[in-house]
Amino acid sequence: MQTQVAILMGSENDWPLVRKAADVFDSFGINYDVQVMSAHRTPERVREYVTKTAVENGVQVFIGAAGLAAHLPGVIASLTTKPVIGIPIKSALDGLDALLSIAQMPPGIAVAAVAIDGAVNAAVLAVQMLALSSEELTKKLTEYRVKMADTIAKKNDALRDSIK
Amino acid sequence: MQTQVAILMGSENDWPLVRKAADVFDSFGINYDVQVMSAHRTPERVREYVTKTAVENGVQVFIGAAGLAAHLPGVIASLTTKPVIGIPIKSALDGLDALLSIAQMPPGIAVAAVAIDGAVNAAVLAVQMLALSSEELTKKLTEYRVKMADTIAKKNDALRDSIK
Amino acid sequence: MQTQVAILMGSENDWPLVRKAADVFDSFGINYDVQVMSAHRTPERVREYVTKTAVENGVQVFIGAAGLAAHLPGVIASLTTKPVIGIPIKSALDGLDALLSIAQMPPGIAVAAVAIDGAVNAAVLAVQMLALSSEELTKKLTEYRVKMADTIAKKNDALRDSIK
Amino acid sequence: MQTQVAILMGSENDWPLVRKAADVFDSFGINYDVQVMSAHRTPERVREYVTKTAVENGVQVFIGAAGLAAHLPGVIASLTTKPVIGIPIKSALDGLDALLSIAQMPPGIAVAAVAIDGAVNAAVLAVQMLALSSEELTKKLTEYRVKMADTIAKKNDALRDSIK
Amino acid sequence: MQTQVAILMGSENDWPLVRKAADVFDSFGINYDVQVMSAHRTPERVREYVTKTAVENGVQVFIGAAGLAAHLPGVIASLTTKPVIGIPIKSALDGLDALLSIAQMPPGIAVAAVAIDGAVNAAVLAVQMLALSSEELTKKLTEYRVKMADTIAKKNDALRDSIK
Amino acid sequence: MQTQVAILMGSENDWPLVRKAADVFDSFGINYDVQVMSAHRTPERVREYVTKTAVENGVQVFIGAAGLAAHLPGVIASLTTKPVIGIPIKSALDGLDALLSIAQMPPGIAVAAVAIDGAVNAAVLAVQMLALSSEELTKKLTEYRVKMADTIAKKNDALRDSIK
Amino acid sequence: MQTQVAILMGSENDWPLVRKAADVFDSFGINYDVQVMSAHRTPERVREYVTKTAVENGVQVFIGAAGLAAHLPGVIASLTTKPVIGIPIKSALDGLDALLSIAQMPPGIAVAAVAIDGAVNAAVLAVQMLALSSEELTKKLTEYRVKMADTIAKKNDALRDSIK
Amino acid sequence: MQTQVAILMGSENDWPLVRKAADVFDSFGINYDVQVMSAHRTPERVREYVTKTAVENGVQVFIGAAGLAAHLPGVIASLTTKPVIGIPIKSALDGLDALLSIAQMPPGIAVAAVAIDGAVNAAVLAVQMLALSSEELTKKLTEYRVKMADTIAKKNDALRDSIK
Repeated sequence: MQTQVAILMGSENDWPLVRKAADVFDSFGINYDVQVMSAHRTPERVREYVTKTAVENGVQVFIGAAGLAAHLPGVIASLTTKPVIGIPIKSALDGLDALLSIAQMPPGIAVAAVAIDGAVNAAVLAVQMLALSSEELTKKLTEYRVKMADTIAKKNDALRDSIK
Repeated sequence: MQTQVAILMGSENDWPLVRKAADVFDSFGINYDVQVMSAHRTPERVREYVTKTAVENGVQVFIGAAGLAAHLPGVIASLTTKPVIGIPIKSALDGLDALLSIAQMPPGIAVAAVAIDGAVNAAVLAVQMLALSSEELTKKLTEYRVKMADTIAKKNDALRDSIK
Repeated sequence: MQTQVAILMGSENDWPLVRKAADVFDSFGINYDVQVMSAHRTPERVREYVTKTAVENGVQVFIGAAGLAAHLPGVIASLTTKPVIGIPIKSALDGLDALLSIAQMPPGIAVAAVAIDGAVNAAVLAVQMLALSSEELTKKLTEYRVKMADTIAKKNDALRDSIK
Repeated sequence: MQTQVAILMGSENDWPLVRKAADVFDSFGINYDVQVMSAHRTPERVREYVTKTAVENGVQVFIGAAGLAAHLPGVIASLTTKPVIGIPIKSALDGLDALLSIAQMPPGIAVAAVAIDGAVNAAVLAVQMLALSSEELTKKLTEYRVKMADTIAKKNDALRDSIK
Repeated sequence: MQTQVAILMGSENDWPLVRKAADVFDSFGINYDVQVMSAHRTPERVREYVTKTAVENGVQVFIGAAGLAAHLPGVIASLTTKPVIGIPIKSALDGLDALLSIAQMPPGIAVAAVAIDGAVNAAVLAVQMLALSSEELTKKLTEYRVKMADTIAKKNDALRDSIK
Repeated sequence: MQTQVAILMGSENDWPLVRKAADVFDSFGINYDVQVMSAHRTPERVREYVTKTAVENGVQVFIGAAGLAAHLPGVIASLTTKPVIGIPIKSALDGLDALLSIAQMPPGIAVAAVAIDGAVNAAVLAVQMLALSSEELTKKLTEYRVKMADTIAKKNDALRDSIK
Repeated sequence: MQTQVAILMGSENDWPLVRKAADVFDSFGINYDVQVMSAHRTPERVREYVTKTAVENGVQVFIGAAGLAAHLPGVIASLTTKPVIGIPIKSALDGLDALLSIAQMPPGIAVAAVAIDGAVNAAVLAVQMLALSSEELTKKLTEYRVKMADTIAKKNDALRDSIK
Repeated sequence: MQTQVAILMGSENDWPLVRKAADVFDSFGINYDVQVMSAHRTPERVREYVTKTAVENGVQVFIGAAGLAAHLPGVIASLTTKPVIGIPIKSALDGLDALLSIAQMPPGIAVAAVAIDGAVNAAVLAVQMLALSSEELTKKLTEYRVKMADTIAKKNDALRDSIK
C-alpha cells in the first residue's frame, strides 16, 4: 500500500511532539512513514530515502521536523519536487532560530513553514494537499472543521456555565 | 476555464512583489486570479470571494500576501479547506511581524508560510501542490529545477572567468 | 440589562488570565459577557456574535484575547466600529508573536493593544472609555487610582520596616 | 469650544507622521489640540498640560506619540483617568523599542498601543471612543468604513484592468 | 547622616533582586534609602521624593529598578540632574522590554543602564561615582576587585582539583 | 591641565557621531581626550592608556564607543575603577548587538550603557558624575535643562503657529 | 606533554556544560587544559595565561565559554594568533546576547562562534583544526561520524519498532 | 598546486562581499578556489565538489557564504570532516536569519560562524587554522596584527591632529 506522507525528524526526541501529526493522519486514514534522520549527521540516508525509498513507496508529501539550525526540510526540498512542510521545533531561542531556518528559503526551492511546534497543522496542511485529488478527504476536512467548531462551542458553554 | 490559484493581496502596493508569483504561474501555464482585498477593511469581500466566487471558479490553492499584522492568509484559511499559502510582506520590523502573524497559526487551521517577500516560492509551492495530480506539471517542475541549476552553473563559470 | 463589554478569547485555556479583566469589571459594576470563540476555527460564530448578538445586547467595547498569530482582536475590529482592545496572550516566543499580530494593524482598522498578558489594563482601558459618558465611572476610576497608590505606600512602609 | 482630543508628541520632528492623525480628526469634524512636549525634557509642562489645561479645555482622549524609550503616553496616563493612546514612533531598532515601551505598561495604568508609526489608527481609535456617546460620529465611522472598502474595490479593479 | 544613594523600585516584588545592590552598599559603608514607588501608579510620590526628600537628605545618586515598560529611571532622571542608574527587571520578554525602555533615552536626559537584573553592577557603578571624590571608596573599590579576582582564582583551583 | 574625561572609540569612523559627546563637553568647559583604540586590534594600547596615561592625566570618567561585539567599554572597565560609560554604535542589527555587548556585563565590573548612538547622553552622564563634586557644573546642568525645555517650548510655539 | 587545547570559561558554573567539550577531547585522546578566568574580573590572568602559559605549553587552539556580554573569546583572540572558538553560554535573553557578543567581532580579529551552549561542537571544531596535520585525528573524525550515523539509525529502528 | 581553501557562495551576488575574503588570502599567499553553488538549488554539485573535487585538490578548509536560511555551510559540514567556516550574508532581517541558520548547528556537525557579512574574519580564521602547521603563516599573522595596530595608531594620530 502506498505511503502518502513521509515524516522525517532530526531527532527521536522530537517524536512526542511530532506524533501529533501522526495522530491527525490516523484520524484521516492516511498512510505515513516515520523516520529519524538528520540532514547533517546522516545526509546520505536522507538523500537515499528522499530520492529512492520515498519515490518507490509513492510518497506525495514530506514533513520535516527539526530544531536549531533546522536544515532538514530545506535539504529534503532540494532533493524532491514534491511539497515539503517544515515544523520548527523549539529547543533554543524559543524556536525562533528553527522558524527562520525553515521559513527563509531562497527563491526556487520552497518549504511550507508552519508554527513553532506546529505538528498538527503540518499534518492538516498535508491532508489539504492530498485532498486536492480526493473527494473523500475533502469531505473529512469539512467534518474536521465542524467537529472543531463544535468542541469550541461546548467549551464555551462549559466555561460560561462555570462562571455564572 | 478553471482558475487554479487565487492570489489575494492586502494592498495594491504589494503587486510589484506579488507579480513574481504570477510570473511563475505564467511560466507553468497555470490559470490564476489576482485580487486586492483586505482581511480587515473588506472582510465581507474576502468571505464572499473565498466561499463563493473561488468555489464556483474551481480554485484549488489560495495565496494570501500581507504585511504588518498580516491576517489575510489566516482569514482565508478559516473560510476554506483548500491549502492556503501566506507571503509575509516586509513593511515594518523587516517583515518579522508579518512572518509571525502568518506562521504562528493555532492548531487546526493551517497556513503554509514562505519567506518574507517570498512570492516566487509561494508560487512554486502552489505548483507543487497542483502537480500532485498532474504529470505534466511534475515534469515541468523537474525542468524548472534543471534550468535553475544550469543558470547557477553558468553564473559560476562567468564569475570564475572574471576573477581569473 | 445592557452588556457593556464583550470579552472574547480564542481558547478556554486563556480564562485564568482573562478573568483578571472580569474581576476589574466586577469591581466597577460593569456588565460583561464572556465568550470562547476562535477567529480561525469559528469565524462564523465570531461574525454572528459581533454583528448581531453584541449589537442587540448593546455592547459598547470589545476585548479580544488571543495568543500566537492572535488575529481575534483584528477580526472583531473588522466587523464593528466599536472600540476593540486586544490582549496578547503569551504562549510562544514569550508572547512577542501575539503582541505584533495585535499591535501592527493596518491603517483604518484600529485595535488598542495592551501588554502581553495585560488583562487588567484591557479592562481599565474599557472602563476609561465607558467613563467618558459616566460621571460615576469617572469617580470610581479616581478612587481606583487612590487605592492603588495607597496599596503601594503600604507595601513601601512594610518593606522599609522589614529591612530596618 | 471644547477640545476633544489632545495630541502630544515628544519632538516636532514627529509632526509629518502625527499629522495623519490630525487629518483624520479634521475629516470627522473633531476638535483637537497639538502640543510638542517631552516626558523627560519638559516633565512640568506635561503635568501642567494634562492635569490643568486639558481638564479646563474638556479633553476627552489623549494621544501621545514618542520614539525610543517612548515614555510620553505612559507619563500622560499616570496623570489622568481619561483614555490614552500611544503611537510608537520609529527612530531606532525599527521602532520595536518604542512599541515595547508603550505597550508593556504595568497593571493599573493602561495605554492603548497602536502600530509603529500608526498615527491614523490612533485617531480612528480616539474617534471610536468619542463615538460611544455620539450617534453622528458612529454614523461617520460607518461611512468611513464604506469609503475605505470602496477605495480598495476601485484599486482592485484598476490593478486587474492593468494586468489583463 | 546624609543619604548617599536612593534606591527606588517599581514593586516590592523586586526587592529580593534589588537587595543585592543594598548588600554592595553595606559592604562599602554607603548610606542608602530604599523606596517602593511607581512612576505610573504614584507619580506624585516619585516627584515629591526626587525633588524634595532626596534633596533634603543629600542624595547624590539614584537607582531606579523597574520591569516591563520600565519608565521609573527615566522619570527620575527628568526630575533631577544627579546621575540616575536604571536596572531593567526581567518580567516579560526576558527583560528585553525593560532594557530598551531604560537604555533608549532621548538626547539630553541620560540614564545609565546596567544589565537585565544587574543590581550588583548598579551599586558598583554608584560606588564608582561616589568614589570620584572619596579616596577611601577608591581604595575599597581596588580591594573589591582584588577580592573578586582571588575568589575566581580559588574557584579555578577547586575546579581543577576536582577534575584531575 | 587635568583631562577629566577620556573618550575612546573603536574606529575613526565613529567620530562624526562621537563628536556630539565632545560638543557637550565643550559647552560645559570640560577637558577631554579623544583616542581611537580597539579592544581587539590594539589591546596593549588600550591597557597602556587606561592604566598609565589616563591615570597620569587624572582622567575621572571614561567613555567607550564601539559597534558590533562592542567590547571596548567592558575592557576599559576591567582595567580601571573609574566609571565607564558605553555608547553602542549602530553598524549591524540596528545596533542591538552593540547594546547587548555593552549592557549585559557580568556582576562586579560595571558599564553604564546609554542609548544606541547615544553620544550626547554619554557626555551628559559624565558631566553629572563630575558635577557631584562641582557646584559650577551642577549649576550648568540646571541651565542646560532650562535651555532644553525652552527650546522645546519654542518649537512647540512654532509648530502650533504653522498649523493654525 | 603538550597541551593542545586550552578551555577557558568565565565562571565555574559553566563547567557542567563545558565539560561536554572535555568529554569529546577525552574520546579523541587530545590533551587539554581547563581554566576558570574572567575577561573582566581577571584580565591580567587571562593575558598572562594566553600570552605566556599557553605559549609555553604549546596550546594550538583556544576555546572560550562565556555568557551575557561574552567578551572572553574576543579578548583571547586579541592576545593570540591561534584560532579561538567561542561558546555562547545561555544565561539571559536565551543566550542571544552571548551569541552576538561572540559572533559579531570586528574585521581582523576573528572568533569562531558555535551554537548557544554548543560545547560539543566547539570541541569537534577544535579537533577538525588539529586534524589538519594529523592523519590519526582525521581517521578518528571519520569514525566519529560513522558512529554518530549508526546511533541515529539505531534510534530510528527503535522508534519505528515502538510505533508499529 | 594544492587548493588550500574552497570558498563556496550561494549566489554570485555575494561576490562583492565575499571577495574581501579572497583579498585576505591573496595577501597571505594562500591558494583558494571560488565556486557559486547552492545547497538547495544545486545539491548534487555541492556534494560532488565537497566529496570529490575538493578532496582531489587537497582543500583543507571550507568557507560557505549564504544569506536567508543559510544552509550552505551546514550542508558542506555534513559532507566533510575538514573545518567549515560560515559567513552569514545580510539580505533579510538584517542577517539575523542567516546568523542563526549558520551558528545554531546541532551537536556533532560543527560550523564556525563569523559575523554577519564577516568575510574578512572568515579568511583570517582559515589562515589561523592553516598556520597551525606553517611557521611562515604564523609569522605573517603576527605581521598582519602589527600592521593593523599601526594603521589604527595612524588613524588615531590623524583624527587627533584634525580636532586639535
